[in-house]
Amino acid sequence: MPEDLRSRVDRQPSVAGLSEADLLARIFPRLQMEAGHTASTLLGPGDDAAVVAAPDGKTVISIDTQVQDQDFRLLWPNGYRTTGFDVGWKAAAQNLSDINAMGAQATSMVVSLTLPVDTPVSWVEDLADGLTAGIRELGAVRCSVAGGDLGRGREISVTVAVLGTLDGGRPVLRSGARAGDILALAGTVGHAAAGLALLEADVPADTLGPAERVFLDLQCRPRPPLGAGPAARAAGATAMLDISDGLLRDGRRLAAASNVAIALDPARLAELAEVLAPAAVLLGVDPAQWVLGGGEDHGLLATFPDDVQLPPGFTALGSIHALGTDDGPGVLTAGRAADTGGWDHFAH
Amino acid sequence: MPEDLRSRVDRQPSVAGLSEADLLARIFPRLQMEAGHTASTLLGPGDDAAVVAAPDGKTVISIDTQVQDQDFRLLWPNGYRTTGFDVGWKAAAQNLSDINAMGAQATSMVVSLTLPVDTPVSWVEDLADGLTAGIRELGAVRCSVAGGDLGRGREISVTVAVLGTLDGGRPVLRSGARAGDILALAGTVGHAAAGLALLEADVPADTLGPAERVFLDLQCRPRPPLGAGPAARAAGATAMLDISDGLLRDGRRLAAASNVAIALDPARLAELAEVLAPAAVLLGVDPAQWVLGGGEDHGLLATFPDDVQLPPGFTALGSIHALGTDDGPGVLTAGRAADTGGWDHFAH
Repeated sequence: MPEDLRSRVDRQPSVAGLSEADLLARIFPRLQMEAGHTASTLLGPGDDAAVVAAPDGKTVISIDTQVQDQDFRLLWPNGYRTTGFDVGWKAAAQNLSDINAMGAQATSMVVSLTLPVDTPVSWVEDLADGLTAGIRELGAVRCSVAGGDLGRGREISVTVAVLGTLDGGRPVLRSGARAGDILALAGTVGHAAAGLALLEADVPADTLGPAERVFLDLQCRPRPPLGAGPAARAAGATAMLDISDGLLRDGRRLAAASNVAIALDPARLAELAEVLAPAAVLLGVDPAQWVLGGGEDHGLLATFPDDVQLPPGFTALGSIHALGTDDGPGVLTAGRAADTGGWDHFAH
Repeated sequence: MPEDLRSRVDRQPSVAGLSEADLLARIFPRLQMEAGHTASTLLGPGDDAAVVAAPDGKTVISIDTQVQDQDFRLLWPNGYRTTGFDVGWKAAAQNLSDINAMGAQATSMVVSLTLPVDTPVSWVEDLADGLTAGIRELGAVRCSVAGGDLGRGREISVTVAVLGTLDGGRPVLRSGARAGDILALAGTVGHAAAGLALLEADVPADTLGPAERVFLDLQCRPRPPLGAGPAARAAGATAMLDISDGLLRDGRRLAAASNVAIALDPARLAELAEVLAPAAVLLGVDPAQWVLGGGEDHGLLATFPDDVQLPPGFTALGSIHALGTDDGPGVLTAGRAADTGGWDHFAH
């Protein structure tokens, strides 16, 4: 980043000068949704806990944390500087995706922020804006931020717990896929991985063309297909999860939970890879690795009985098979075990 | 700590050697509750989200984070080494307390752990044991751990989001106190602060007698009075919060939300300080500062109409008054504004 911007950032007021109450007063107004947004929060911030509607007597709940230098870098090798807006948006997106993957709709979030004392106040305000924008622009029309927690630490850490509702339906689990089912994908796969490769490459961010830039943007601000989860449930999806750690890794999880084998269609994989050509050519790599190993687009992988018409947004990606006598659950491409990795927080 | 134990810790297997799945497999069995524990989890770990019962159509939700070197030290100045069990217990306790403070009962927790790669696996297992023990021994008989998230970071960070139920009742807010109400306390106040002072003092932990040790133990493993919150709600409490940041600071929050003045009874404050004498004498300090400024016991501060019999566990601590024409909301002792601080994550 240019030195003049760096020094401007350094001169900004940091959270060290604010009390917890002062900082909350800067954040809360930015978390408000516009009138007409049908949020489910019955009691919002200001007490020891919030209260959220659960009209069918069940609440879906998930939690996810982003940590500086693990899940994002403040400054990437290609010169891109992660904004607070990016981190807020991504926190919203990946949590909303977990609710989507159950076939549910998000109703509420609570947010815990850990901030180094030198974090600029404007960066935190920007994070709140990104969180609000993510909820709104991704279409989580029943969701708002119900409360949160603030504290200090050596590194930025953002944890969101998200609540959702199934509206009286049953959750779609990972374990329901059956031999004969169709495997289908909603959303993109590999785009965020291409974006990560661009962020980590030696090609300056400001020299990227629009065809490459779209991948970088998707890594920083993922766009999970939020309508698709409830639509899959309504259509009779037998199993579902979101692709957060890679098609192969998450595919294996679905296969293991359902005790089946997944056969991916090589022609479809090639099509998915083709879309990534602009970034792959620029970096001189095979885009198949991004399709098979890349997470963080938060697309949905779902299985449907073969007589079901796939709901809007889903396209076929393969098929589900019974295990042979000598085989364990797994993922095959062109009849062979697929073995490109995927993301593991500890073993990589 | 003795060098031989230090070196034994250093030789223990760390989380660096385990995949996320392997580490989860070490943790989950330790989070199981015994048969007969009436947990509300309808779908537990293993999918993208959990499902928790909300029988009355409402869910109470709170979130709280503990960060190494901010909320606990792995090694304290007095030689005490914080165990994983302590951190797990405290995570359970402070989150259960937030639900208690609304007059609700906890139904479920989700946990996000951020761990440096050199964290011993045994320390993480111990944390899971502490979380389970906290839930069980504090009497959260409807609560269990429904899911979680694991990631790496430079410092240990433990975030818990906790869900609860009001069983059809209305939450007790901070804003309902009225002139003429009685102010009452359930649980202890100042004990955890005395424990913190002992941990930070020059008196070796292993030389403490049982009368002092009890305070250190309460700082590390708080014991919020979990029955008292729902009992206060049932008895008609007009306002309530948990004392997490100090009697004065939290009292001011209640006063501000209700737009009233709180008068604390000096004789009761003296009684509360007297209990802390063993630690105060040892350290040569005035225990009144712990009573007024110390948080983390997670006692409850509640207000009741003056014709209500205080529920079991509560004792009177003062009274609620209308604001004079020139006064803002606040806390008085013996007719004077009380001004010992309390805990603020940013401004202290």
